Amino acid sequence: MATNRFPVMEIFGPTVQGEGMVIGQKTMFIRTAGCDYSCSWCDSAFTWDGSGKQDIRMLTATEIVSELFEIGGDRFSHVTLSGGNPALLTHLNELIGLLHDRGIGVALETQGSLWKEWFLHIDELTLSPKPPSSGMKTDWLVLDDLVARLSEHNRNFCLKVVVFDETDLQFAEEVHRRYPQVQMFLQSGNDDIAESDNAVLLHRLLRRYEWLVESVMASTVFRSVRVLPQLHAWLWGNKRGV
Amino acid sequence: MATNRFPVMEIFGPTVQGEGMVIGQKTMFIRTAGCDYSCSWCDSAFTWDGSGKQDIRMLTATEIVSELFEIGGDRFSHVTLSGGNPALLTHLNELIGLLHDRGIGVALETQGSLWKEWFLHIDELTLSPKPPSSGMKTDWLVLDDLVARLSEHNRNFCLKVVVFDETDLQFAEEVHRRYPQVQMFLQSGNDDIAESDNAVLLHRLLRRYEWLVESVMASTVFRSVRVLPQLHAWLWGNKRGV
Ligand code: SF4
Ligand code: SF4
Repeated sequence: MATNRFPVMEIFGPTVQGEGMVIGQKTMFIRTAGCDYSCSWCDSAFTWDGSGKQDIRMLTATEIVSELFEIGGDRFSHVTLSGGNPALLTHLNELIGLLHDRGIGVALETQGSLWKEWFLHIDELTLSPKPPSSGMKTDWLVLDDLVARLSEHNRNFCLKVVVFDETDLQFAEEVHRRYPQVQMFLQSGNDDIAESDNAVLLHRLLRRYEWLVESVMASTVFRSVRVLPQLHAWLWGNKRGV
Repeated sequence: MATNRFPVMEIFGPTVQGEGMVIGQKTMFIRTAGCDYSCSWCDSAFTWDGSGKQDIRMLTATEIVSELFEIGGDRFSHVTLSGGNPALLTHLNELIGLLHDRGIGVALETQGSLWKEWFLHIDELTLSPKPPSSGMKTDWLVLDDLVARLSEHNRNFCLKVVVFDETDLQFAEEVHRRYPQVQMFLQSGNDDIAESDNAVLLHRLLRRYEWLVESVMASTVFRSVRVLPQLHAWLWGNKRGV
């Protein structure tokens, strides 16, 4: 019987995954609290900056799964683990095991700063090293190690870099040159996380995506990458829990 | 020496693949002429209705590849075969072979009305049976056969259905129930292919995508599908060759 408890911030869905390697996927989200980073433009800062403290509940894997089914009914068979950084949680394999027992696929996004053995059980894993605009610094040796382990086990994983400006784009090039064999996603950033007028936000996001597309199309470094926006921000703006 | 000639309508790129299983992919497009269907809302009718006849050139695989490099330089390593229906062309394996020799990945989209042996060499293959709103009728036995062959060879392929209305959505359910093991994409349709005001078009497309997302999220049939718009229409409207 699993008795470990995990800090859960939100459970919601089903909704569409708005970004990355399974963009468009119908999925439930489990958002865990806590992050070892503090990115300047973090759109989930409430998971680690104290502002969402009252929403954190310590739940067992069994409790999380029953809440998932309460909310999602029989309308889903895919779950996304999001944060914060879920890689902080040592025993998350308990949750992943329960989900797989029920035929549910599990995706994870993490910045790639920490390794956990349960990464090997994730169906779609995104390593998302943070570019300079975030204010964070990538520990390349740790990231090398993660990429090596996932490659060795033939896992379904990718690299994703959020790009706000030219310097971020250079960082993305560095990532791509370092791991040329790993499928690479470039994502246009949303630096307007306080904008509440969705029409204004949409037009800014479109221009940002267009800029990124043009830059990547002209590049001889990025020859077979994928360039995507955040669909959920286009649809729902900065609203949480959709 | 390859001497077969193929009816080529356009070669352009690199640009982003705006839809489906490799949405966001940086790719060159090769559009071939001719289709065995005549969908009511076809956005490439110029490939088969005679209106683009003067643009069709009969090129060998070698000529196509050299034109690709003339246009795309060293900025790409992915090519998408599009139409019309490229599955009409028996010897396309010649082109695919030349591209693979150069380390270039090859994607194909076809409605699934015809089988070709060279499907087994496609890196990302989309079978896109047409819903009732197209006016076309799916030959299920042919589609069964295609799905069986691709599955048997463990190919990387998916099903995609464009959805305009409730009837199309029911058709998509039928497809998903028939091939539950195949990754399924639902795509919101663009029935405004003559709209030249991109802002007007964008808002209509957003609403359509939102409707499709809501319908699929509420469904107990579509539990782990992917729901996507056409990004290129959001960005560039109905312009050709971008
Ligand atoms: S790693 Fe992610 S969750 Fe953590 S601070 Fe950065 S953006 Fe926020
Ligand atoms: S199958 Fe595709 S190219 Fe052929 S008529 Fe239909 S939409 Fe157009």
